[in-house]
Amino acid sequence: VALVRRTNPFQRERLAGIASSAPAELEALPLTTKEDLAADQLAHPPFGSNLTFAPDAYAHLHQTSGTTGEPLRILQTAADWRWNRACFARALTAAGIGAADRVGLAFSFGPYLQYWSAYEGAKEVGALVVPLGGMDSAQRLETIRDLRLSALVCTPTYALRLAEVARSRGLEAAFAPVETILCLGEPGASIPSTRRQIEGAWSARCLDHAGMAEVGAFAYACAAGGGLHLNEDEFVCEVLVPGTERPVPPGGRGELVLTALGRAGCPAIRYRTGDVVDTAPRACPAGHAHRWLPNGIVGRTDDMVVIRGMNVFPSAIEQTLREVGVHGEYRITFYTDPGARDEVRIQAEIARPDVARAVEDRTRQRLGLRVRVVPVRPGILPKQELKARRVEDLRPIGRPGTESRRPTA
Amino acid sequence: VALVRRTNPFQRERLAGIASSAPAELEALPLTTKEDLAADQLAHPPFGSNLTFAPDAYAHLHQTSGTTGEPLRILQTAADWRWNRACFARALTAAGIGAADRVGLAFSFGPYLQYWSAYEGAKEVGALVVPLGGMDSAQRLETIRDLRLSALVCTPTYALRLAEVARSRGLEAAFAPVETILCLGEPGASIPSTRRQIEGAWSARCLDHAGMAEVGAFAYACAAGGGLHLNEDEFVCEVLVPGTERPVPPGGRGELVLTALGRAGCPAIRYRTGDVVDTAPRACPAGHAHRWLPNGIVGRTDDMVVIRGMNVFPSAIEQTLREVGVHGEYRITFYTDPGARDEVRIQAEIARPDVARAVEDRTRQRLGLRVRVVPVRPGILPKQELKARRVEDLRPIGRPGTESRRPTA
Repeated sequence: VALVRRTNPFQRERLAGIASSAPAELEALPLTTKEDLAADQLAHPPFGSNLTFAPDAYAHLHQTSGTTGEPLRILQTAADWRWNRACFARALTAAGIGAADRVGLAFSFGPYLQYWSAYEGAKEVGALVVPLGGMDSAQRLETIRDLRLSALVCTPTYALRLAEVARSRGLEAAFAPVETILCLGEPGASIPSTRRQIEGAWSARCLDHAGMAEVGAFAYACAAGGGLHLNEDEFVCEVLVPGTERPVPPGGRGELVLTALGRAGCPAIRYRTGDVVDTAPRACPAGHAHRWLPNGIVGRTDDMVVIRGMNVFPSAIEQTLREVGVHGEYRITFYTDPGARDEVRIQAEIARPDVARAVEDRTRQRLGLRVRVVPVRPGILPKQELKARRVEDLRPIGRPGTESRRPTA
Repeated sequence: VALVRRTNPFQRERLAGIASSAPAELEALPLTTKEDLAADQLAHPPFGSNLTFAPDAYAHLHQTSGTTGEPLRILQTAADWRWNRACFARALTAAGIGAADRVGLAFSFGPYLQYWSAYEGAKEVGALVVPLGGMDSAQRLETIRDLRLSALVCTPTYALRLAEVARSRGLEAAFAPVETILCLGEPGASIPSTRRQIEGAWSARCLDHAGMAEVGAFAYACAAGGGLHLNEDEFVCEVLVPGTERPVPPGGRGELVLTALGRAGCPAIRYRTGDVVDTAPRACPAGHAHRWLPNGIVGRTDDMVVIRGMNVFPSAIEQTLREVGVHGEYRITFYTDPGARDEVRIQAEIARPDVARAVEDRTRQRLGLRVRVVPVRPGILPKQELKARRVEDLRPIGRPGTESRRPTA
């Protein structure tokens, strides 16, 4: 903190209020939002002013995925990078992936941090690292089969997509060697029905972890109780009532705010992650020391949609679909009917009308939400291989409940 | 050598003939060909038996590009990997790329070694590493421009392609920050006309290096004299008359045979690279100690085509095209005319008949080769973004001179 306050233009004023780096002082510091960092990068292109060291000291550049707005650029020094690597290694270890594993990394290696963290983390745990960039799905499946890869790291959406390609192309032999799938990039693996679907398709364990370019890999799977543990060795973790600075009560739902203890070059101090989590009033079943998030990442504050006064997460709707046995693509549309009433339409790959009704019934029972389900033929909705973009919000901007809607793809 | 002979099944018999690991003993060992390794992997899937350690000891898997036949799988231990990384770092250092540089890695990160060596090597020299996988050409150009990347690593074909996209999309501002382009994957940057074309398009220095998955990065650019230096600190280098075990005389042309001194897990001992090089009868102009290859990699033994008794490299024909000012796509076709005579046809993006005649004249003068040039409209020949596949050999197999022809794409 002393160093950052002295040399980092972005943090200087923000840290002025504290006298020492004692953890108790943390709550006095201002929160940092993605918008703060984005505005700073716009004002000081290309890297912003959240830089503790001279430009030459930085070794790695990564970006946020740009799902919402312009990508943020995050620089790391070699020391930050070693820390980042160790954080991802913890996620692998928690998933039971180690030196005896052959780990396939099934994604393109763009500038998004998590891909590179996975590569570095797999090195750190001593596994055999097999990068699967620059391949199509069939080539990846052949490689998994031929090299008998025991673990796979990919997005949950892509794990399902790969399974589908395996079945349609007669490459089911790729399922046999894979024991573990570690998901990244999307909260899907924390959604029980999605996780069960992945586990069913692959006959493998599916585990989650959580990370983001702004802070690193901050949570790892709890094999005993499901969900995630916050890596409190490396992060100071707070859960705040969205839109406020008040911590949620034990067991409450709120926004995760993180301070990364090992990142000095481009610090993340009280960073509003935008990730919504449910806290647990107690330890996990195995009594692990780190704070437990029994439902993993529940959603994003900017995914949260207010429909007729209710907080709705598209991920909860996805879970309902999967529970009823709908496993293909889907699209959720929020719109306003002629009577100015917010409505929810779900287009999904469903063959029978009674299944559509079952989705409507269950969504009402589980979420208290009335929706209309429209069956569509397979292949009509676009395949979403990477970050799932399956939600569109067609309501007029400025209407109550649409303030926090995210841009749609 | 002692360890490898004891534990490596593939090498055991091969190394039986030598009493010590003294360099002088090397010449007594049998040569290793790609076919030897491929047959071994077929007999002992998936990794073959050229393994000095137990499976868990390996940290990285990479493959040959599979341009000719099934890809070879090469395993490396963590120690091999550190050595591999240092070899590539040398190629970067020789190209003047260091800690002050921002290095864009403009390729997909598939299982080909060189991509990962470039990533690791850029870390090793302390540069800012910016991976550009999973992007299209326009996105890469925008990133180069916005982040002011000072160095680029890519194939020579792709360097030209990127320049073309920059011009057609109004992204020429990407040229300004780039000072150095280090080429990999193809010999193009050692072809003077191709190098000049890249340097002209980018207003940047273009430097070559050479490496292959089977051995690692074995040669780095000579800034003083052009061409490459063999990294004799890390490799024992021989140049043999193709098809024989005789060394070429000083100044002669032959096949490069390499022994990788830092790769114990999957050793390369007297490996026939298939790369054809011209040796120099003297040191480079700057008097560097390592052996100098004034023309870099001249071609591949399996690219070499015998036409009417002459050894012809498609790369030499490419050079002629570039010298006459033909910068678009081209295709070279070898075929047999009704009179059973081998002929060479060059289709190239040429607008004026006199340019076509100029290519024919120069090819006859420079290479002693009679060719027929057929101008084609731009856009008809397929774009070759990665490994250039621009040669087709339509002559009946078994005819004299067609023994060593490579499969065509």
